[in-house]
Amino acid sequence: MKKREGNRLPDTVALDEERNALVIIDQTALPGELKLLSLTTLEEFIDAIKTLKVRGAPAIGVAAAMGLYLAVKRSGMERLGEVKAALAASRPTAVNLFWALDRMEQAALACPDAPLEALRLEALRIRDEDIQACRAIGEHGLALLLENRHKEGALSLLTHCNAGSLAAVRIGTALAPVYAGLERGYRFKVYAGETRPLLQGARLTAFELMAAGVDTTLICDNMASIVMQKGMVQAVLTGADRIAANGDVCNKVGTSGLAVLAKHYGIPFYVCAPMSTVDFQSVAGEDILIEERDGQEVTEMWFGKRMAPKGVNIFNPAFDVTPHTLVTAIVTERGVLRPPYAKSLTP
Amino acid sequence: MKKREGNRLPDTVALDEERNALVIIDQTALPGELKLLSLTTLEEFIDAIKTLKVRGAPAIGVAAAMGLYLAVKRSGMERLGEVKAALAASRPTAVNLFWALDRMEQAALACPDAPLEALRLEALRIRDEDIQACRAIGEHGLALLLENRHKEGALSLLTHCNAGSLAAVRIGTALAPVYAGLERGYRFKVYAGETRPLLQGARLTAFELMAAGVDTTLICDNMASIVMQKGMVQAVLTGADRIAANGDVCNKVGTSGLAVLAKHYGIPFYVCAPMSTVDFQSVAGEDILIEERDGQEVTEMWFGKRMAPKGVNIFNPAFDVTPHTLVTAIVTERGVLRPPYAKSLTP
Repeated sequence: MKKREGNRLPDTVALDEERNALVIIDQTALPGELKLLSLTTLEEFIDAIKTLKVRGAPAIGVAAAMGLYLAVKRSGMERLGEVKAALAASRPTAVNLFWALDRMEQAALACPDAPLEALRLEALRIRDEDIQACRAIGEHGLALLLENRHKEGALSLLTHCNAGSLAAVRIGTALAPVYAGLERGYRFKVYAGETRPLLQGARLTAFELMAAGVDTTLICDNMASIVMQKGMVQAVLTGADRIAANGDVCNKVGTSGLAVLAKHYGIPFYVCAPMSTVDFQSVAGEDILIEERDGQEVTEMWFGKRMAPKGVNIFNPAFDVTPHTLVTAIVTERGVLRPPYAKSLTP
Repeated sequence: MKKREGNRLPDTVALDEERNALVIIDQTALPGELKLLSLTTLEEFIDAIKTLKVRGAPAIGVAAAMGLYLAVKRSGMERLGEVKAALAASRPTAVNLFWALDRMEQAALACPDAPLEALRLEALRIRDEDIQACRAIGEHGLALLLENRHKEGALSLLTHCNAGSLAAVRIGTALAPVYAGLERGYRFKVYAGETRPLLQGARLTAFELMAAGVDTTLICDNMASIVMQKGMVQAVLTGADRIAANGDVCNKVGTSGLAVLAKHYGIPFYVCAPMSTVDFQSVAGEDILIEERDGQEVTEMWFGKRMAPKGVNIFNPAFDVTPHTLVTAIVTERGVLRPPYAKSLTP
């Protein structure tokens, strides 16, 4: 089989030590422009997370770790607590954010003689672990797809939002099996749900898959049912923003609907996420705080003109909870976890 | 209870006999502007149907009937077959179009002495029957909603696309129970799925419900799962573009997904449509031709800028088929039909 590189984009999040900058791909400029931003202040880091210039649970974790290091380097170690709190307040749902910030704080506390150097090393370690975890998820996920492949030819998948390269440092989570498979010469046909309101599927997933030469078909979210009904996909793969201890999965709004559909149509529903996404403090999905975002995202953003009547109520939850009973498997860097997740998910 | 008029908009489709014109609300201008178009040529009638200036299965049927009459009046009775064929080719899925055109032709053939007058009367009859059928659907549907109301206060519904006033002549189909209920002083809370790609839910349903003073909440299509999961609606109501003899329902893409979700969450799924929507020639849903529309509707229309990478494949089916097993009841002008539909649906 022909060898090829899976993902050819620059790292989504990187530390520029020479310029003391956090370098990110500006995801709000995609798919029009591949723009790198070089951010240096705490305000810029927070704004980048809030406004989704950097998004995706793993990428947010890495960006927050690097941001904490850079902000403390700039303002002094005595402001560590304050900087940590400010970054933690940027978004509420993705647990990797809190997990990364906690790790950073612990690393500094564990090394009172050189706390700044400890922060630097911990940020780089979090980044390297993300790269390795995604690679392992890719291998485990690919094996899983090959296992229940029901015909020769391209492996056909449906994914939601963006849990690809742009959601982590390098090859992503839900799309990691695709990149791992491309390197071995497997062919894929990926259906990307556009993911309203912010169109991460249309803008980001379609962009990165096409950049990697994958046969990509964009659909509106409400077309997932007909795609599954017609047998066009063999599996559904998504990422996760937070996984509760019982295996309930909090992910981009719409994920729970896809899981219900997949069950109805007899299609496996796989969640791909690093262990850092598992929040053992959340016993079940209902314990997870779901971010509600501005209704204007629904009525105007990405539209040239307002497409809903003025004054209409908007319900705009950014995430939803997929009960563990609908999740066929959770693919982590440790391998393929099966139900009951209360047992297979261990700290 | 306080009496009020349900729907206060002008008729969606009307015959202006003085000016020999088909007068329609231009649905592509909503919600920005309530604009009436006065169309006089066959090309204008066909264009209005093709470009969705008039849409909604019942409204298409009435518009085609009136259009046939006006076009034949203008071009001569000998061109009846040609005019009929041209109108029939405007859209493929809504059966009311073919049904109305067949009725018109039969009416002319049955009255060889005054075929044009027969066409005029038949067009007006089709319009009047639509108004009466929607009124009856409203009454039957309202009774059904009151029957399985699970708490006091507003009746809470989820609907998809637009099967309201703008989809028929006056009070619509799926929203007819809302308008009938408003007249009796009932309160409603309606969740409208925006309905990508063309946003009929956001632009049309939200517009007409707000014009009627209904508490309306717009959601993206992928939020239907969380809305049902949280118990925010007591029933799902949609219209239909064509119903097969076995009760399979062809309707706006996304409908089948809502039906799967409703079943999963234990919420009744009601289809509201006049008997003219039932196609006894289609034994099952798979016999129905599903229109695929231009991918540009997904990638650009309604967006100020292109929001998907150039060259990406687009799958853009306009409709999908909901199997009869997922339909709790079909509400027609004859009453509430229950499974097995092969028995309860009769010509």
